Amino acid sequence: MKAGIKVFAPATVANVAVGFDILGFALEKPGDEIIARFSDTPGLRITKITGASGKLPLDIQKNTAGFAALKLLEHLGEEKRGIELEIHKKMPFGSGLGSSAASAAGGVMAINELLHRPLEKRDLLPFAVLGEQVADGAYHADNVAPSLIGGMILIRSNETLDVHRLPVPEGIHATVIYPHVEILTKDARSVLSDTVSLKQCIGQNGNMAGLLVGLYQSDFGLIGRSLNDVVIEPQRARLIPHFYEVKEAALSAGALGCSISGAGPSIFALSVNSLIAEEIGIAMKRIFDNAGIGNDLFVSPINQEGAVKL
Amino acid sequence: MKAGIKVFAPATVANVAVGFDILGFALEKPGDEIIARFSDTPGLRITKITGASGKLPLDIQKNTAGFAALKLLEHLGEEKRGIELEIHKKMPFGSGLGSSAASAAGGVMAINELLHRPLEKRDLLPFAVLGEQVADGAYHADNVAPSLIGGMILIRSNETLDVHRLPVPEGIHATVIYPHVEILTKDARSVLSDTVSLKQCIGQNGNMAGLLVGLYQSDFGLIGRSLNDVVIEPQRARLIPHFYEVKEAALSAGALGCSISGAGPSIFALSVNSLIAEEIGIAMKRIFDNAGIGNDLFVSPINQEGAVKL
Repeated sequence: MKAGIKVFAPATVANVAVGFDILGFALEKPGDEIIARFSDTPGLRITKITGASGKLPLDIQKNTAGFAALKLLEHLGEEKRGIELEIHKKMPFGSGLGSSAASAAGGVMAINELLHRPLEKRDLLPFAVLGEQVADGAYHADNVAPSLIGGMILIRSNETLDVHRLPVPEGIHATVIYPHVEILTKDARSVLSDTVSLKQCIGQNGNMAGLLVGLYQSDFGLIGRSLNDVVIEPQRARLIPHFYEVKEAALSAGALGCSISGAGPSIFALSVNSLIAEEIGIAMKRIFDNAGIGNDLFVSPINQEGAVKL
Repeated sequence: MKAGIKVFAPATVANVAVGFDILGFALEKPGDEIIARFSDTPGLRITKITGASGKLPLDIQKNTAGFAALKLLEHLGEEKRGIELEIHKKMPFGSGLGSSAASAAGGVMAINELLHRPLEKRDLLPFAVLGEQVADGAYHADNVAPSLIGGMILIRSNETLDVHRLPVPEGIHATVIYPHVEILTKDARSVLSDTVSLKQCIGQNGNMAGLLVGLYQSDFGLIGRSLNDVVIEPQRARLIPHFYEVKEAALSAGALGCSISGAGPSIFALSVNSLIAEEIGIAMKRIFDNAGIGNDLFVSPINQEGAVKL
């Protein structure tokens, strides 16, 4: 077997209460590992997938990591190169933590590393977004961009991938809990009204702007007041059992804010240091434990690196 | 006649394309001048109004400057003090340039100066907002706040007056043209739909966020891409004759962006220096001149001082 490289691409929290479809941040863990190696058989193949209980396709055209990798190889004129991919899912999927985005980011990262970085990491983004589109049909980068390049990322426009890294004040930690209940992304979309009131739109816009000012000025009070989703959360909360209890527990434990991660069912909170983030996790976990709902808890600073070669 | 003090409160551009009801900035000129002096007659009175063609009431309860001043005096327990106000309107009203807000800001500023600054300028804001509410019924600070404290101001929440000064990159100038056509604020409100599509809301939110990042990073390209109102301008543009021609002329002359000032009919553009701002003004003015529509043109940096004692 030829030598290969291994990359890690992290889970992400999209929407972040006030930036539906246009804001996301990366976690330190969990995430996907992807191995790429050269092969004597021409073309790109996925030879192994672990951790997915057989639910992810080996077909390059249907696999987010595979399709993202293929689109990058085509761009580089290397689609005939013999390359094998192994995908080791080390994070839950259908969790609202950007599982497909992590695979897509990992796919392009692995190819780029294997080929000795023909592109800058940031320039891999369009191919990763095409990969994620295989999974959910939409062309948006709010999970893919932070998984690939790390940080808290604004996507001003998904059409043009006008992507900007936002400052994150020292100390900010995320607490994320994934309750083991199933929400399909398409169901999470279908509960959303196509319209919002002008008043809600103004409220969301003010909170998004407030969050940005809070991030730039390290104004934790303002960040807390701004992390208030008046558009999406009220519509989706009922899909997640005990959502409001968990949110209340997080806020009582000192969270700056708490809302749904991506399309759910995961719930995230932000706080000012790791100690409070751990305490928030204990408080959130207690609700689901008491309700007999299995769950996974992750506490992490904002990951500023994104996808990395291991 | 007892000695008094005179203050100036500037005109303002609210909404700023992407911040309907929550964003505004102040101009160097035009603006209102307000004189306050002590009197032997107890209570607050407006003794003179010039420049308003008899359209503004002398009644304290109905006059924005008077009512704002009265609310401040009540707060200070000084409502029995004999004080006279003169209001010299030196800017057009019904223009979308925050005329009533300038009067309200000037009213509280004049009282505070006359009484030797019992409050910090910023703490005058709630009283000024109450004053403007007399004119248009709504409690919002997107004109009042920049007129009072200057700068480019975000109002995250009008309910709580959660007000934040945004950075403005060196060089940025505003060009504002007021065509002599009448739009009543209530008409400008009535053309607006109570709902917006989720897609428009996301677009506006992305552009607001993009504008803020652009301002913080001095990224003029991003500011330009972000100054794009997908919610309000499309609904109000038809109220302003030749709006799209004027906008096109401004953009062709080098504007970063161009949209409706407040509720209109004034149109503003932002640009990177005074030379371009002047050229934009010439281009905008030509459209209205050719159409036989009288107009006033103002070119100004962003006024960072707001209301001042003269």
